[in-house]
Amino acid sequence: MSETGVLSVVGIGPGAQAQTTPAALEAIARAHLVVGYRTYVQLVRHLLEGKEVVQTGMTEEIGRARAAVERARDGARVALISSGDAGVYGMAGLVFEVLREMGWKRGNSPALEIIPGIPALSSCASRVGAPLVHDHCAISLSDLLTPWPVIVRRIEAAATADFVIGLYNPASGRRTRQIVEAQTILRRHRPGATPVALVKSAYREGEQVVLSDLDRFLDYEIGMLTTVIVGSSQSFVFEGYLVTPRGYGNKYTFDGEVLPGQQPGRSLRLAEEG
Amino acid sequence: MSETGVLSVVGIGPGAQAQTTPAALEAIARAHLVVGYRTYVQLVRHLLEGKEVVQTGMTEEIGRARAAVERARDGARVALISSGDAGVYGMAGLVFEVLREMGWKRGNSPALEIIPGIPALSSCASRVGAPLVHDHCAISLSDLLTPWPVIVRRIEAAATADFVIGLYNPASGRRTRQIVEAQTILRRHRPGATPVALVKSAYREGEQVVLSDLDRFLDYEIGMLTTVIVGSSQSFVFEGYLVTPRGYGNKYTFDGEVLPGQQPGRSLRLAEEG
Repeated sequence: MSETGVLSVVGIGPGAQAQTTPAALEAIARAHLVVGYRTYVQLVRHLLEGKEVVQTGMTEEIGRARAAVERARDGARVALISSGDAGVYGMAGLVFEVLREMGWKRGNSPALEIIPGIPALSSCASRVGAPLVHDHCAISLSDLLTPWPVIVRRIEAAATADFVIGLYNPASGRRTRQIVEAQTILRRHRPGATPVALVKSAYREGEQVVLSDLDRFLDYEIGMLTTVIVGSSQSFVFEGYLVTPRGYGNKYTFDGEVLPGQQPGRSLRLAEEG
Repeated sequence: MSETGVLSVVGIGPGAQAQTTPAALEAIARAHLVVGYRTYVQLVRHLLEGKEVVQTGMTEEIGRARAAVERARDGARVALISSGDAGVYGMAGLVFEVLREMGWKRGNSPALEIIPGIPALSSCASRVGAPLVHDHCAISLSDLLTPWPVIVRRIEAAATADFVIGLYNPASGRRTRQIVEAQTILRRHRPGATPVALVKSAYREGEQVVLSDLDRFLDYEIGMLTTVIVGSSQSFVFEGYLVTPRGYGNKYTFDGEVLPGQQPGRSLRLAEEG
C-alpha cells in the first residue's frame, strides 16, 4: 500500500472511562486496528465494535510493537494502547526503537501521534491524598530489562536527596526480592515512621489503598498491580491521607501574612542567613 | 449552613479540551463555584456559564485555597482547578494544609475529591517523543518556597543516578540564576551532548518544542511556561524525537529472540556474570 497510515500510541489512564481523555478515546475510535496487552484492551472493550483487535500477553511487547508499526506503515490507522501514560514505562519507547530499526524517517508512513494519559503515579497519588506536590521520582523495580545495580543506585540517590519516591513494578509472583532490598536501602536513609502508601488498581475494580510506613509496609500484599509511594521527610499523614506540602509554611502564615525576614516573589531566605 | 459541601481539587491537564478527562469536566460542571489562577480559569471558560468564578493571581495561592475550602465547608460545591495535575506542584497539597489547620476530620464537610489530570511532564514529553519511558524525576527549580540547597542536592542526586530529569519552573522574569546553576551541576555528571528538550505551552496556543543538548540549551528562551527534560545516559535523539528506551535491547533482538545467556521473565543477567 502507498497510503500513509497513522500510528497512535495511546495512554488510556488508569482504566476508568472518566479518567481517559477525549483525545485517547478519539484515537481508538478512529483506528482500524487496536493493539494492546489483553488487560488494557479489555478496559476499552466498549469502544472496539467493528474493529480488528490484537490482544497479546505481557511478554510479547516487541512483537506487539512491530505488528502495530508495520500495519500502520502499510496504511492502516492503528492505536497501540497502554494503561497509564504510554510514555511512562509504556509502549512509546519501543515504538521509536522499532521505527529506528526499520529506517523510518519523519514524513514517511506511518504518521505518529503520542497521546498522553494519566500516569499510574498520578492516579494512585490522587486516591491517597497529595503525596506528589513536591519533587518526586519514578523508579521501576523490575530488573527484567534493567541491571539491578542501576536500580539500586537510583533508590539510594532518591533516598538521600529526599525525593518522594514512586515505585513501579514493585513485585510479581516470581520477583519478590527487590521490594525487600528497596526497603532496606530506604530504611538506611529515612526513619521507619516515614509514611508509605500502597495503591492497587486505582479507579478499577478491586481498588485498594493502604497507608503504612517504611518499617511495616511489607506486611501488606504487594504485587504487579501495586504502586508504592514513599513519602519524603516533609510528607505527613492527615486523616488517612498522605500529603507532601509545597512549602508555603516556610514563607507564609495561614492568613497569607509573610513571615519575618521573607519576601514574596523572592528566594526563600534560610534561617542561617536571617 | 449545615449541608455537606464538596471540594473537588481538579487537574485540567495541559489546557486543551481533548486532554482534559471527563471526570475533571464533570467536577467543573457540577460546581457552584470555580476557583483558580486566572490563566487556568480561562482555559475552561466555556464551562463556566452561570457559575460563580473566583480568579486570582499567581501569588495568592493561600487565599485561593482557603476561600475554596471555606465555601465548600459551608455547603457549596467548589472546584479548585490547577493546570496539569493538581497533585503535582498543584493546589492539592495546600488544600490539605488548610484543612488540617482548621481541624477538619473525615466525614466533616466538605467531602473531598482529588481528580488527577495529565501532568505537565507527561504532556510535554508526548510532544517531543518518549523521554520518560524509564526512571525519571521531577524537580522544581523555584526557590521561592524551597531552600536552594535542597534543590541542588536533588539535581546532584538525579544527575549521578542517571535519572531522566524534568525541571519544572526553570526560570521566570526575575528568577534566572537557577537554570544556569542546574546546567553547571548536570554538566559535571553528564556529557555536553546529552539531549535536552524544552517544551513550552504543550497543547496550547504558542506551543514550542526545542531539542537541544546540555551544552547549548541555555541559548534558547526558557521561562515560566517551559518544562525542561534532560535525557539520561540511555536517551537518544531520533528524527527530531527524544527517546529513552525501556531496555528491551538488553535482552532481546528485534525479532523477539532472546539474547544468549538471558531468560524471559528472569532478572537481566549482567555481562560479568555471563
